[in-house]
Amino acid sequence: MSSMGASAEENLETKQMDERSFSISSSQGQQQAPPYVHKVGIPPRQNLFQEFKATIKETFFADDPLRSFKDQPKSRKFVLGIEALFPILNWGRSYNLKKFRGDLISGLTIASLCIPQDIGYANLAKLQPQYGLYSSFVPPLIYAVMGSSRDIAIGPVAVVSLLLGTSLSNEIDPTTHPEEYRRLAFTATFFAGITQATLGIFRLGFLIDFLSHAAIVGFMGGAAITIALQQLKGFLGIKTKNFTKKTDIVNVMHSVVSTAHHGWNWETILIGASFLGFLLFAKFIGKKNKKFFWVPAIAPLICVILSTFFVFITRADKHGVEIVKDIKKGINPSSVKEIYFTGDYLGKGFRIGVMAGMIALTEAVAIGRTFASVKDYQLDGNKEMVALGAMNVVGSMTSCYVATGSFSRSAVNFMAGCQTAVSNIVMSVVVFLTLEFITPLFHYTPNAILSSIIISAVINLVDYQAAILIWKIDKFDFVACMGAFFGVVFATVEIGLLIAVSISFAKILLQVTRPRTCILGKIPRTTVYRNIHQYPEASKVPGVLIVRVDSAIYFSNSNYVKERILRWLMDEEEQGKGDYQTRIQFLIVEMSPVTDIDTSGIHALEELHRSLEKRDVELVLANPGPVVIDKIYTSKLANMIGENKIFLTVAEAVAYCSPKLAEDP
Amino acid sequence: MSSMGASAEENLETKQMDERSFSISSSQGQQQAPPYVHKVGIPPRQNLFQEFKATIKETFFADDPLRSFKDQPKSRKFVLGIEALFPILNWGRSYNLKKFRGDLISGLTIASLCIPQDIGYANLAKLQPQYGLYSSFVPPLIYAVMGSSRDIAIGPVAVVSLLLGTSLSNEIDPTTHPEEYRRLAFTATFFAGITQATLGIFRLGFLIDFLSHAAIVGFMGGAAITIALQQLKGFLGIKTKNFTKKTDIVNVMHSVVSTAHHGWNWETILIGASFLGFLLFAKFIGKKNKKFFWVPAIAPLICVILSTFFVFITRADKHGVEIVKDIKKGINPSSVKEIYFTGDYLGKGFRIGVMAGMIALTEAVAIGRTFASVKDYQLDGNKEMVALGAMNVVGSMTSCYVATGSFSRSAVNFMAGCQTAVSNIVMSVVVFLTLEFITPLFHYTPNAILSSIIISAVINLVDYQAAILIWKIDKFDFVACMGAFFGVVFATVEIGLLIAVSISFAKILLQVTRPRTCILGKIPRTTVYRNIHQYPEASKVPGVLIVRVDSAIYFSNSNYVKERILRWLMDEEEQGKGDYQTRIQFLIVEMSPVTDIDTSGIHALEELHRSLEKRDVELVLANPGPVVIDKIYTSKLANMIGENKIFLTVAEAVAYCSPKLAEDP
Repeated sequence: MSSMGASAEENLETKQMDERSFSISSSQGQQQAPPYVHKVGIPPRQNLFQEFKATIKETFFADDPLRSFKDQPKSRKFVLGIEALFPILNWGRSYNLKKFRGDLISGLTIASLCIPQDIGYANLAKLQPQYGLYSSFVPPLIYAVMGSSRDIAIGPVAVVSLLLGTSLSNEIDPTTHPEEYRRLAFTATFFAGITQATLGIFRLGFLIDFLSHAAIVGFMGGAAITIALQQLKGFLGIKTKNFTKKTDIVNVMHSVVSTAHHGWNWETILIGASFLGFLLFAKFIGKKNKKFFWVPAIAPLICVILSTFFVFITRADKHGVEIVKDIKKGINPSSVKEIYFTGDYLGKGFRIGVMAGMIALTEAVAIGRTFASVKDYQLDGNKEMVALGAMNVVGSMTSCYVATGSFSRSAVNFMAGCQTAVSNIVMSVVVFLTLEFITPLFHYTPNAILSSIIISAVINLVDYQAAILIWKIDKFDFVACMGAFFGVVFATVEIGLLIAVSISFAKILLQVTRPRTCILGKIPRTTVYRNIHQYPEASKVPGVLIVRVDSAIYFSNSNYVKERILRWLMDEEEQGKGDYQTRIQFLIVEMSPVTDIDTSGIHALEELHRSLEKRDVELVLANPGPVVIDKIYTSKLANMIGENKIFLTVAEAVAYCSPKLAEDP
Repeated sequence: MSSMGASAEENLETKQMDERSFSISSSQGQQQAPPYVHKVGIPPRQNLFQEFKATIKETFFADDPLRSFKDQPKSRKFVLGIEALFPILNWGRSYNLKKFRGDLISGLTIASLCIPQDIGYANLAKLQPQYGLYSSFVPPLIYAVMGSSRDIAIGPVAVVSLLLGTSLSNEIDPTTHPEEYRRLAFTATFFAGITQATLGIFRLGFLIDFLSHAAIVGFMGGAAITIALQQLKGFLGIKTKNFTKKTDIVNVMHSVVSTAHHGWNWETILIGASFLGFLLFAKFIGKKNKKFFWVPAIAPLICVILSTFFVFITRADKHGVEIVKDIKKGINPSSVKEIYFTGDYLGKGFRIGVMAGMIALTEAVAIGRTFASVKDYQLDGNKEMVALGAMNVVGSMTSCYVATGSFSRSAVNFMAGCQTAVSNIVMSVVVFLTLEFITPLFHYTPNAILSSIIISAVINLVDYQAAILIWKIDKFDFVACMGAFFGVVFATVEIGLLIAVSISFAKILLQVTRPRTCILGKIPRTTVYRNIHQYPEASKVPGVLIVRVDSAIYFSNSNYVKERILRWLMDEEEQGKGDYQTRIQFLIVEMSPVTDIDTSGIHALEELHRSLEKRDVELVLANPGPVVIDKIYTSKLANMIGENKIFLTVAEAVAYCSPKLAEDP
């Protein structure tokens, strides 16, 4: 293409012109012409309403969700609106048999994985086993209709079950008041759904981003350890009623050790350990060769069948091996009337629900994003939240507890070749059949097997490789990660969460309170000025100090920035003491990274200007951005400093300073 | 200076060289030599401990307080340490008679201003008048020994008195339980001092920066209005006991209006209004001509003397004019045993103390900074906090309530020519003499005069000009300002404070959650790339999209940044649809303003890279900073993107892209 060749040439030519313009400006004063200095652009003033609209749009509608609605007739907009709420209407039209084949296989695979997990997770949430199955029946159906992720597998998950189990049993004892406990669980589920939907509707989905990746890694790892510890009771067949209700490692290990002499059941341990070995081996095979991903996926079901059969024929339950006993047959009963809408438990349910809803959301959105990125489709986080919220609200009315996307099952779903959310429907149908016909067969399933399945399921959540990477990349992130981890392991899930959020916030605040500043030097043979710490070959310009401020200047850092710049100046002057040539006469502040400035920041610059005047140093600004230059003019700071001392680049600012230095006697 | 002339020449020469190097790199591929492209510097790896130490230092010791201790013998360090704690030992040695003259005059001036104010402020804090005077006796002495500001005038101030008065009377009724109320006031003062000293010792002084300038303007304005409203009762001579205890404008005005028929006292209004007129006129004169600054300074005392004399001879107190009556004679009694160190009131006193301490600190530090900047001396904020804290702790044990620096009195102190903190000692001595000998003379002082004095003192706190400037510069700041203002006026002082802090935090969070991104274009006849919105003459490079991210990429914004960049790309592609030449082949991310990146940020860049690969767009990075480049290498992201696609400047990155575009068929 000739035009492109031309553009490359033009590129070359403009650089020569550029050089010319620079050399004129730098030899300013000796030559006749007024120096060619590029003016710093002041963007056209926006009107207030537009500015406000733009801010709102970037904050809440950053992903431009109404893009497809633009320039459409009203009827079409209505159809698009319905389709947006129920994506199944959209993708359903192009659904075909080939896609169904993929969905059927993956649906059956995740169903075989979810049934034993559900029973175990219900146990973790201190609910009867059928509630786990209920939660894998209704919510996936709702999600299939409303959700837009194609790969997520919906159902109860370990971490949320643990969180619910510990928070709810702090309020009500599940053994003495099972009825009230269950009602509070539904109440919490209801408010979890309301929280999720509300965040989605008001487009506040970005709030979950405040739980950083590092914090999640630590939190998940800690939760996995806590869950595994909880399973020790079932795994070792400990029967004592004095087993601690706390979840921290110290109390649990104390309970475990103190029951070692008389409370452990060796038959249970034998069954549990051998099947755990089998499960871990299956996991190993699945990891070794991606083709065998189905091995770890169906292993739990095989374990359940084998162990149930084994217990049934040996009647090991008579020897102290705890079994599941009865699981209620039939599908979900209604639980609308069981939710506490008044009274003392309303507030408690609300509090627990909000927390569980946020955690569930974090997990689901992370999964959705991961697979959307792998298959390269767009996912509207806020719409997802509405779908997940609706699913949990409906769930709370049909005897389900909080369901969300599961990491492990979604990965299996993906690898089994799921195409759409129909795989969730398939899974849901299988769970339905199980509830209707198969539950009596679980009578002799030993609890130890459920413990083994949970332990092998959560073991992957301890992502030590991620922790190592975090350590390498960002030490502060690592502190957040470890804080969350140890908080969960040594205290409670809530405290771990609190630590993670607090450290994440502290990091943000630290960033805005103590922004980086650095001294710039000229890189040899260029007009480029860079951090002299990063580029040791960069040289300072004599008599000129160039400081770059690496952050918006806000009230939280304006004093620091001002004082830090003055300290750079003092340091520099101390170094050059006695050497007249290096007396600093100009201070250039490179403002490229200063994206915004507020009234406190303007004040700080005014004070800086005054302090410098007293020291006989000129303040020069380089490359203020659109927002900053606008505010510098509005506040009359430009007049104070002098409009001619605001430059497009550091190079031009230096060119302004250098001839002056040369004139100096 | 020949060397400087040489440096200017060198400047010119290097630019030519620079141009050459650019032209070579842009004609890359056609020529033989490897392109001269500047390598992005990777700073020498710091060891972990050093990095940690540097972060701690910048966070807590940003002002390098130990600078003067460096390289000194031990004995000298000890002396310096004592001097740092008691700056009087330092400046006291060079104190002379000339300085004393200035301090004497200014000390007498602020004493004449503070005595009537103290009595009024004590009233505002719902304490007996002598406690205001006590608080102007001991604290200034302590501050003179420990403080380092030369201009601040110490004593009770209006806003803190109001805050204490409302918060304390929420807990204990000052009319029915004056004893307990006073004890709680001392307890709060004690903890205010402890809070201040603690912040100073742990060098957490930067925390007070989180109350932004705008929020303070709004808060102070609202507090001034509230204080003035509180004075209406005394000013109008309302005697009813049903006068509201709330401070919001609605309740107060309702009380005022409902008592209009039978509760107002016309004699009181006459005295109050005429003296208020006199005070405002004195203020006007002082403002008109700086030389007459002493007119408003001594006007209050004149008012008190005249009005007291007037009431004494007319016996107006018999006609319903309320008078001060007895002020206890003698200096501060000890109150060590009155502080609640146990019991229910300990917690309440602590809470109120922390809040009052922070507000007092904000005011004192703002004053200290302002005058230090005017007279150009350094002030260590953290050391100031220790001094203020010590002063209030001692104060709480000597029957004082929270004292701090007063805006109005410090300004008078400054204009009267104070030289050192000796002016505070002079004031303290005058207050001592007043307490010992003159208090009986205040017997007939009408309360209306105190109200007039307070109204005229706080009226300046309504800084509408600052509010207008804030509106012009930063709309978000204005919202914080108005939020604080209306919160104080229409609800309570605490709610106003809460609103101010919340909005300030929301602003910081918004900044880190939704950072600005922009498209860069080439400014004609330069190699400079700038925001095309700010510089409409800047032109896009065909086939290349250049995006600048204006913030550190952290967990809170990593997803947004990734999606926003992809959206820029989509927008660009939509615009260029059908036009083959403009198909985007390169996405250059200008990273100069990206000061830091964390693990979530690295993940986002990885995902961006993958998404771009699928669209057949190359990701190119320009000018990552030292921290960022380090993390890009550590995380192997550099390998993923390709080390040769990381450039020093946007110009070089474009030079890399352009010849490739030219080769395209």
